[in-house]
Amino acid sequence: MSTFTVKAFAAESTTADLKEMNIERRDTTPNDVEIEILYCGVCHSDLHTARNDWGGTMYPAVPGHEIVGRITKVGSDVSKFKVGDLAGVGCIVDSCGHCDSCKQDLEQYCLNGFTGTYNGKDKHLGGHTFGGYSQKVVVDANHVLKVPENLDLAAVAPLLCAGITTWSPLKHWNVGPGSKVAVVGLGGLGHMAIKLAKGLGAEVTLFSRTPGKTEDAKQLGADHVVISTDDTQMDSVKGKFDVIIDTVPYVHDVNPYVTTLNISGTLVLVGYLGGLEPILNTVPMILGRKSVAGSVIGGIAETQEMLDFCGEHNIVSEIEMINMQDINGAYERMLKSDVRYRFVIDMKSL
Amino acid sequence: MSTFTVKAFAAESTTADLKEMNIERRDTTPNDVEIEILYCGVCHSDLHTARNDWGGTMYPAVPGHEIVGRITKVGSDVSKFKVGDLAGVGCIVDSCGHCDSCKQDLEQYCLNGFTGTYNGKDKHLGGHTFGGYSQKVVVDANHVLKVPENLDLAAVAPLLCAGITTWSPLKHWNVGPGSKVAVVGLGGLGHMAIKLAKGLGAEVTLFSRTPGKTEDAKQLGADHVVISTDDTQMDSVKGKFDVIIDTVPYVHDVNPYVTTLNISGTLVLVGYLGGLEPILNTVPMILGRKSVAGSVIGGIAETQEMLDFCGEHNIVSEIEMINMQDINGAYERMLKSDVRYRFVIDMKSL
Ligand SMILES: [Zn+2]
Ligand SMILES: [Zn+2]
Ligand SMILES: [Zn+2]
Ligand SMILES: [Zn+2]
Repeated sequence: MSTFTVKAFAAESTTADLKEMNIERRDTTPNDVEIEILYCGVCHSDLHTARNDWGGTMYPAVPGHEIVGRITKVGSDVSKFKVGDLAGVGCIVDSCGHCDSCKQDLEQYCLNGFTGTYNGKDKHLGGHTFGGYSQKVVVDANHVLKVPENLDLAAVAPLLCAGITTWSPLKHWNVGPGSKVAVVGLGGLGHMAIKLAKGLGAEVTLFSRTPGKTEDAKQLGADHVVISTDDTQMDSVKGKFDVIIDTVPYVHDVNPYVTTLNISGTLVLVGYLGGLEPILNTVPMILGRKSVAGSVIGGIAETQEMLDFCGEHNIVSEIEMINMQDINGAYERMLKSDVRYRFVIDMKSL
Repeated sequence: MSTFTVKAFAAESTTADLKEMNIERRDTTPNDVEIEILYCGVCHSDLHTARNDWGGTMYPAVPGHEIVGRITKVGSDVSKFKVGDLAGVGCIVDSCGHCDSCKQDLEQYCLNGFTGTYNGKDKHLGGHTFGGYSQKVVVDANHVLKVPENLDLAAVAPLLCAGITTWSPLKHWNVGPGSKVAVVGLGGLGHMAIKLAKGLGAEVTLFSRTPGKTEDAKQLGADHVVISTDDTQMDSVKGKFDVIIDTVPYVHDVNPYVTTLNISGTLVLVGYLGGLEPILNTVPMILGRKSVAGSVIGGIAETQEMLDFCGEHNIVSEIEMINMQDINGAYERMLKSDVRYRFVIDMKSL
């Protein structure tokens, strides 16, 4: 299969800083589009993959799955896009298309495993996929999103992962006008959860461990901030929330949040993969028909729905723009939660 | 308030056997009906309350919340029943009627606390409520169920707790034709879960730790039995079930069952109140949008819906009839799971 060379930023080993290198992209097949990448958001998964924190990283690793760009080539069978169109690519660049999940537009739960935008199995070239920290990407057009023209393009990029990760559970658990939604954690995911839940018409509360984030949360659209370390404040929201989006990425006690769920309410974990410690107490769950659930990113159709919604409601991420060469420092700042609320790489810098 | 005396069986202390004693029932108020009790099912809660296993038992304790009888008196404002009608009483004899839960017919989640059929706060006489191990009971008519005439009345009794406890989550999580349902545990709750899920049109699987229950489970309506200690069998149902009703009443590992949930599936705990040990792993939950939830009994309207459904589909509990005087021995057998599948007391024996 013929290929072409583009510049990218890659980690060559677990401990190496990311640096510039050349990678190969396939030439556009009839079903593909070629995208010149304008902006790429920086997700925590990028960092964890680059450093092999979860195991399984294939090197060289080119992270990046919050991609916004412009179509530069269109495969002969593609009618969805034309050259010059804006385009977005999220976490999924391919899926089987025929399993029960794919047939329901739930490619994120593809029973045969979706192809990740990076560190996935490259069906075309062999080896593994390379993400958005690069000049161009070639993607199956059915896995490429249309991007509203009216939004700040750099600030759209994080919608492709942080946005859809919080949108999907909000929609699946029927959040709309009148819903009471709480968000745990105010980072890349949490700030999008606030904006999207508010956009959907919900009354939105942020749970925060410290009072320092109150003003920011309210500017993002939160109606209330509850300090989770303050028992009186926690008691005041007992039994209140229909849906809680828990974005905390490390082990933490979810029991205090479960007690703030309304009858039949659901707490959805979107950030923490691991064991629930301290142990989950079933008493409030049984006596209030409460659920603890998980959710990962979202499907292609749902991502498009979210982007269209954001276009209509003027919702974008809060970002700090960086150059590609700043990525290693940005990772260090992310580890200290020192970002409001998402780094986005200006790809002109590459 | 005027009262009358009836015979009952009661525990007078944590360690005492149950024995005959007299209790007072209120005279029928305008909203009440008086019921001559024909049969009373024996629930594990009866035993735990009699022995104060959960704390909070008030003595003398008269258990029993699976009551079937005939109306012997009707209050002046009651139009729903007439003397001679069959009647059922479950776990709930009163509720506030005006909270968000009660307004949605979810009296089991009454935000002001429903009045339990026994060991509840008696609003009329003071003290605590006495259950169905007695000759008669007087109950607010809005909390009394109509019982289908075509069913074996003794075998209807367990529907009032074991039946509704499994029916409510099956309905809430939308079980119907085409659903794949699994049931964990084959006791009083489990055998009703199989019958009701099957009645609703689901494909039903029993998870059992030993092969000995296979034939029984299939006679009850299970399509499949999976031996949960057999890894090959467990692997064969990975990702299969839309809903799992987990009736196990003691601490147990739910993680193996979570992996057998389909995408977006829900495991509902109905038997175990306590901490989930070993700790719950969120990985399969997040990567498959799976939920772990709890549920307790059901509302009055929903209980009526279930009884009507059972009347139409000829569904009753499998029972072993005992005399009132056999109750202490029956408790010992229940502790050894030596009952297929519910003891029911023939109240003529009192
Ligand atoms: Zn991401
Ligand atoms: Zn698929
Ligand atoms: Zn019971
Ligand atoms: Zn109420």
